[in-house]
Amino acid sequence: MSGWVKIVGLGPGADSMITPEVTAALAEATDVVGYVPYVNRVAPREGLTRHGSDNREEIRRAEAALDMACEGKRVAVVSSGDPGVFAMAAAVFEALEAGKPAWRALDIQVLPGISAMLAASARAGAPLGHDFCCINLSDNLKPWALIEKRLRLAAIADFAMAFYNPRSTSRPIGFERTLDVLREECEPERVIIFARAVSTPEESIRVVTLGDATPEMADMRTLVIVGSSLTRVIERAAAPLVYTPRSVA
Amino acid sequence: MSGWVKIVGLGPGADSMITPEVTAALAEATDVVGYVPYVNRVAPREGLTRHGSDNREEIRRAEAALDMACEGKRVAVVSSGDPGVFAMAAAVFEALEAGKPAWRALDIQVLPGISAMLAASARAGAPLGHDFCCINLSDNLKPWALIEKRLRLAAIADFAMAFYNPRSTSRPIGFERTLDVLREECEPERVIIFARAVSTPEESIRVVTLGDATPEMADMRTLVIVGSSLTRVIERAAAPLVYTPRSVA
Repeated sequence: MSGWVKIVGLGPGADSMITPEVTAALAEATDVVGYVPYVNRVAPREGLTRHGSDNREEIRRAEAALDMACEGKRVAVVSSGDPGVFAMAAAVFEALEAGKPAWRALDIQVLPGISAMLAASARAGAPLGHDFCCINLSDNLKPWALIEKRLRLAAIADFAMAFYNPRSTSRPIGFERTLDVLREECEPERVIIFARAVSTPEESIRVVTLGDATPEMADMRTLVIVGSSLTRVIERAAAPLVYTPRSVA
Repeated sequence: MSGWVKIVGLGPGADSMITPEVTAALAEATDVVGYVPYVNRVAPREGLTRHGSDNREEIRRAEAALDMACEGKRVAVVSSGDPGVFAMAAAVFEALEAGKPAWRALDIQVLPGISAMLAASARAGAPLGHDFCCINLSDNLKPWALIEKRLRLAAIADFAMAFYNPRSTSRPIGFERTLDVLREECEPERVIIFARAVSTPEESIRVVTLGDATPEMADMRTLVIVGSSLTRVIERAAAPLVYTPRSVA
């Protein structure tokens, strides 16, 4: 049997959110490649070699996956969430474009997953029910000035916004700056959702206003959603429901 | 057993992209509510009543679902793709907020699905691998001026863009205008992907430049993705791979 690379999304955490096509690909794989905590989500079995690597090893990991497929192996490259959203798919294609011509002849597929953004939105209600944007707040691979420009333009466009990688111990300042920019562009009543570790035992959902938001409410496991100016909160005995109406009057 | 409402995403078309939690909810439901072609994707069985309704009946359909749950029924409200992205979740919450107080005591959950945007992106490569936005091009529920403003700001922010509902027989002009706006703001080499009916037997993926794009390339079953200024096309013997790099130099 000839080799392949399938770049698959494991969803946000719960097995019940992994699509059957991803489960089938993992069952057929000879090798699983990815960041250690994601590789560990794939159960060990005979005939499967698991290759966990560090964060920021994306390109080397992608090259190894492409090389193994050339040797006839069936390689699943795993990401949490969706592999096409700030995850391994772009890294594999960067490696492919810069790398060996033989890699272009490989059978390569991307199998989508439930992204953190969609899972977080579902848990809160429907905050992304109207036009929205999605921004990676890490400035490891782009200048902060571009992030700030995008935040301001997104606020002027009145998009709802989903933020990936809002805050880490190595980047404690960025999210504080993000809140400052939002406070310059949006009213203090603007709704913000901090959705942490959705669909895992550590899940927590917190709904606050921009005026009450603090940087400590986010960490690397948090997906942050900022509503548009029209986003509404429905209070009830159970957790509130947040949604953005489909209509603009 | 007491009633509930689960607002579920059926994914773009293939059964292999429906999550197990959605499959389980459909198996437990007494009633399925939604737009006729989506309700028809749920196989008939004893004990299940399927309520298909017309497009643009969203609020009435949502009210009926909430009423049935109050009567003790287990109601699945179905959307294609993800229910939180231009689909039934926001409609249910609009109905809930404006409707009977008893509805707020109901057990209501949103179960995410593979959105058309994520499925289309996966088929093409990883065009949404960097910051992006998502815009509904229908002007049924918002003024065209707002769509145009968002398009221009998204282009200035250099987001990749995903467009839902680009073109229908009742709105033949909007997508032509969209291309005009993009041509004013972006270079003619900008990559555009027309992803039609992804994961169904009618699937087609077409990769062109903005200069070569024509309105007829889109219809209501097409998800359109416009790359950022950095989006790249990898040519090979098989279909080209389109991706947006993770880095901005």
